Parts: sequence; structure tokens; C-alpha cells
Amino acid sequence: MPSVRYDVLGIGNAIVDVIARAEEDFLLKHNMRKGTMALIDESRAQAIYEAMGPAVEMSGGSAANTIVGVSSLGARAAFVGKVKDDALGRAFAHDIRAAGVTFATPPAADGPSTARCYVLVTPDGERTMNTYLGAAQDLHPADIDPDTVAASAIVYLEGYLWDPKNAKDAFLKAAKIAHEAKRKVALTLSDAFCVDRWRDEFLQLMRTRTVDLIFANEAELHSLYQTSDFDAAVKALRGDIGHAVVTRSEQGCLVVGPAGTEAVPAFPVERVVDTTGAGDLFAAGFLAGLARGADPRTCGRLGALAAAEVIQHIGARPETSLRDLARENGLAD
Amino acid sequence: MPSVRYDVLGIGNAIVDVIARAEEDFLLKHNMRKGTMALIDESRAQAIYEAMGPAVEMSGGSAANTIVGVSSLGARAAFVGKVKDDALGRAFAHDIRAAGVTFATPPAADGPSTARCYVLVTPDGERTMNTYLGAAQDLHPADIDPDTVAASAIVYLEGYLWDPKNAKDAFLKAAKIAHEAKRKVALTLSDAFCVDRWRDEFLQLMRTRTVDLIFANEAELHSLYQTSDFDAAVKALRGDIGHAVVTRSEQGCLVVGPAGTEAVPAFPVERVVDTTGAGDLFAAGFLAGLARGADPRTCGRLGALAAAEVIQHIGARPETSLRDLARENGLAD
Repeated sequence: MPSVRYDVLGIGNAIVDVIARAEEDFLLKHNMRKGTMALIDESRAQAIYEAMGPAVEMSGGSAANTIVGVSSLGARAAFVGKVKDDALGRAFAHDIRAAGVTFATPPAADGPSTARCYVLVTPDGERTMNTYLGAAQDLHPADIDPDTVAASAIVYLEGYLWDPKNAKDAFLKAAKIAHEAKRKVALTLSDAFCVDRWRDEFLQLMRTRTVDLIFANEAELHSLYQTSDFDAAVKALRGDIGHAVVTRSEQGCLVVGPAGTEAVPAFPVERVVDTTGAGDLFAAGFLAGLARGADPRTCGRLGALAAAEVIQHIGARPETSLRDLARENGLAD
Repeated sequence: MPSVRYDVLGIGNAIVDVIARAEEDFLLKHNMRKGTMALIDESRAQAIYEAMGPAVEMSGGSAANTIVGVSSLGARAAFVGKVKDDALGRAFAHDIRAAGVTFATPPAADGPSTARCYVLVTPDGERTMNTYLGAAQDLHPADIDPDTVAASAIVYLEGYLWDPKNAKDAFLKAAKIAHEAKRKVALTLSDAFCVDRWRDEFLQLMRTRTVDLIFANEAELHSLYQTSDFDAAVKALRGDIGHAVVTRSEQGCLVVGPAGTEAVPAFPVERVVDTTGAGDLFAAGFLAGLARGADPRTCGRLGALAAAEVIQHIGARPETSLRDLARENGLAD
């Protein structure tokens, strides 16, 4: 078995965010469901872009944001995802590498352009996302390098991978290699509507122990078990998987394990500017803690700290060293 | 003579900013002079980009930033500048139009890619800029539409236009048309090293009354008259041009007119995050005031207010409605 070279390997859609502020009525006018992620085709992408305000382009992608957070916390991180060899694809590759992450997936030479997510941030700081998957759809099992997976303590996958058709097979290949190498596999459920699209398959992944740990927010959990009863959903979750973390925004999170559940508080936030990346960065903190063997409460607090940083500014990636922030808060040496 | 359709028409280099945080030693290592703008070729652009940290892409360009600020203040604004028909060029066009600015310059179909400015923001909030001019060099006199110029109350030009070789002729053509239509021509000196490159020509523009109003910061003024004596420089300035504004960072500005000079204070700022765009937005506020016939002090205060907004966040364009901000501060109806 190879020695561990990466604490966390993330596999996800490689996306560049195009972020603009918008009023509530913009969402209504364009039939967007606030706080969710919708998949869009190229013509809708163009229509939304034309209608939206001045924008900022920043690298994004759920698992990619998480992995950048993991790296910012001082852990060794790698990412697998597909961009095209175009301007946005090169920006994505630059940004993730500049964050200290190993990123070796070859870009697509032709085909659709690099994936873009049009993010509308309303005055309350909530984000509504519209994703054109583009080149991310070209992530194939061949892009999964067995050595890299086997050399990663935790493989972290995003539920959004179920949307591009070949990425699912890449996901399953990575999970199989990881388990053969006695590594852990974690999954985020990504989005309540993503859960709605793939509910049975996600439950199957949990029940067959294809994944060892899942991250879900309340909406995703309710969608998974089609219930509005939180306690019932948590009970069902405990029956389906050994380890899980349920994030509850300003109420912190619930760490679910075989021995029981533990509620961990959030960090207070002065002003929520943009919630984009909150869940991604929570996962980053939790995984970085897990990778160094921290207890569930410390993992949860690290997650909460990273999430608190990212929602206080525009964009889904940390603007400061999360490791320094963790030290200042007594959560790292 | 056509009626006025635009309060301010800006002509400048159409640039997309690529902004990253950097430590002081990064500037030293890469031979950058802090706080200034350096022109770079494509290979240096690539080397800097590879070395710099995770970045954000945002539309920039000095006069373009000013014009977006003018529009945000509720005045009618238009811009002329050259991008290529590539991803960054389309983003530039989208952003300026989405800000309410008329932008009709056709993009270049081939040739170098859209201009990029690699902006390094140090922990003190100061910005150091490296500009690859690319497609901006293809701005030609043919891009100056006489009707648009004649229909603009103020034509605002950036000193940086002296760097791309054909843009200078476009500048002179616009100034001539403007004066024939009895409009005003304003110029920003842009950067101390830009002044150093073009000192004699800038002085010539002032002495021949090709420009009616200039904007300069202290460093540019000292560079223009090659003196470290501020009062002597202001005296020389008064001899060379009827109207000028000298910006002095947190000390506010000095409005210089035929009747004398008036010092106008700055607005207090809680924390300087990124000074990129401070001068550009000062000009925006001043010009928007001028366009509606405000007195010099009000113009200066509007400039100071717009500058204060832009230095409190990353990026060179306003993140909030400057008109609302002006109203809250008693500077607009």
C-alpha cells in the first residue's frame, strides 16, 4: 500500500463562478429558486449572463472550494476535475495550484467550454446558483489515477458528480480504489434538488458502505428522507451510515457517529455578505480536523470557523490563512 | 450642435484586472515598484501570473472604472476602449454595460488578447500593477465616433492612452471634436511613471489648452514638475492650466481654479482593504458633480466619497450605488 501523500483528495466539478449582486425580484423574474443550484444549458447561461449585473469571476466548484480550504488549513490536498484548455480553465488551474493544491487532471482540448456557475447574491447574503456544466461533463474514470487515490487518507466527493454522466463512474472507481487501500470515502449531498434527482442512488451509496461519511445540511437531509421531521431524519440517517455531519447554519452542526450525536455551535458572524461556499468550507474544516485525528467537536468547530470566514466576504474561497485563523481560535498548533 | 446625450464620455485602455493578495517580499522578488503601474510583455505577464496567488478577475481600466463610477452616481456615461472578442473581452463588455454605461467600440476579431492588469494587493491595502496592454493597443482614431464625442458634456481621457501608439491619435481626435462642439476635455495623469514617460507631451496638452482640466495625485504632480516642493508644483500647475484637482489620499484634495485653490477634506475610512481604483473613483465623483454644475467643494466631496467606498473592498469598481451613498451624505438629491 502506498504511503499517504495527501490528507484529502477532492473530486468534483471544476467550475468558475461568475458572481453578481441581485435583488430578490431578479430571481423571481428569471424563475430561480433562492438558495438552490439549478443546472442550465448554454442558451440559458447566456440569457442569465446578459440580464445580470456587473460580475466578478472567481474559481469555484463545491469540492474544489473544500480542497482549497483544506490546503489553507495546512493539510496536504489534491483535486481532480475537468476544465477545458480555455481562459477560464487556465484561471481555475492557476487558482487551485496557487492555493497549494495538487491538480493534475489534463484539460479537455476541445468540446464545451469550462463550466461556469452564475451566482446571484441577494441583499440578505443568500446565493442562488445556475450551473452550466460544460467541460466538467468530460470527467471520465480514466481521469482517476489509482496511485493518487490510494495515497490519500480521505477521498472527498460531491453529490453534484451525479449530474455529469461519466463523472458517476469516476466517483465509483475512486471509492473502490480508496477502500481497497483502506482509505476513507466522504460525500457531500451538495444540494436539496441534487438529492431529489439522485435520492435512491445516494441512499444506496450509504447503505452499501460505498461512502463512510456524509455531509448534509438540513434541507438536503429533509430531501433525502422526504420528511420535515428533523429528529426522524437524523434517526434514519444513523441507520443508514456510520458517520455523518448535519450542518444547521447559525445553529452549528450535529456530528453523528456510532456512539451518539454531538451538537457543535457555530462561530458568531458580524455580517453575512455572501453565503456561497459556507457548506464547502465547513467540510474543509471538518476534514482537515479528521485528517489530523481531532475529536468530533474540534472537527465541527474547525468547520464552523472556516464557514464563518467565507460567508463574511464575496466568493467561495478563503481570503485569509485558515491555519492562522484556527491558531488564533485555539483550534490548531 | 447635437444635444448632450452623455454627461461624461471616457476613453481609455479596456483592461480586466487579475487581483491577488501578495506579501511585500513578492514585490521585491519580482522587481516591482510598489504603488505604481508597470507595462509588461506577454512572457512577463505569464511569469507573474504563475508566481502570484489565487486571483479574482474583475473588469478594470482606469477611465473605465471612472465611467462606471459616474454611472453609479446617476449621470449618463459612455466609454470607448478596445477589447478582443475573447472571454475576458466579453466579460469587460458585459460588466461595463451592466453598469449602465454605453459601450459601442467593436472588439478586435484577431490580434493580441484582451488587456490584463495583474494587481498585487499588499497587507497595507496598497496595490502594485503590471499591465499587459494586448488588444488595448488596437484602439485607433477610427474608433472615435464624432457624434458621440460631440454629444458628451465632458470627455475624460487617461494618461495611460499615451502608451499604446495609436490611442494617442484617438485621444487627440476626440479632444479636437469635443472643443469644436464646445465641450470640456479632462485628463488624468494616471501614474508617476506614466508622467515620466510622457512629461513633455502632457505639459504640451495643458499649455495648448488641448485639455481643460487635469486630475493628478501628489506623486504625479511631483513627477510632472520634477520637484519635491508641493507648493512650487501647484504654482507651476496654475500657470499651465485653468482647472486642476490634486488628490492627496487621506488629506483630501486641492481644487485648483482661476480664482484660487480650495482644500477639500477626505472621508474617514474604517479600514483600507485595497486602494485599487481610488484615483479613478475620485475622478468619477468629481466629474459627476461637475456635470450637474456643482461647486468645487461639492465636486471634491463627491470624489472623496466615491474613493472612500472603493478602497474599503477588493476591486476598482463600486460595490454599492454611489448615488444612494451620495444621498445619505447629503451630496445628492
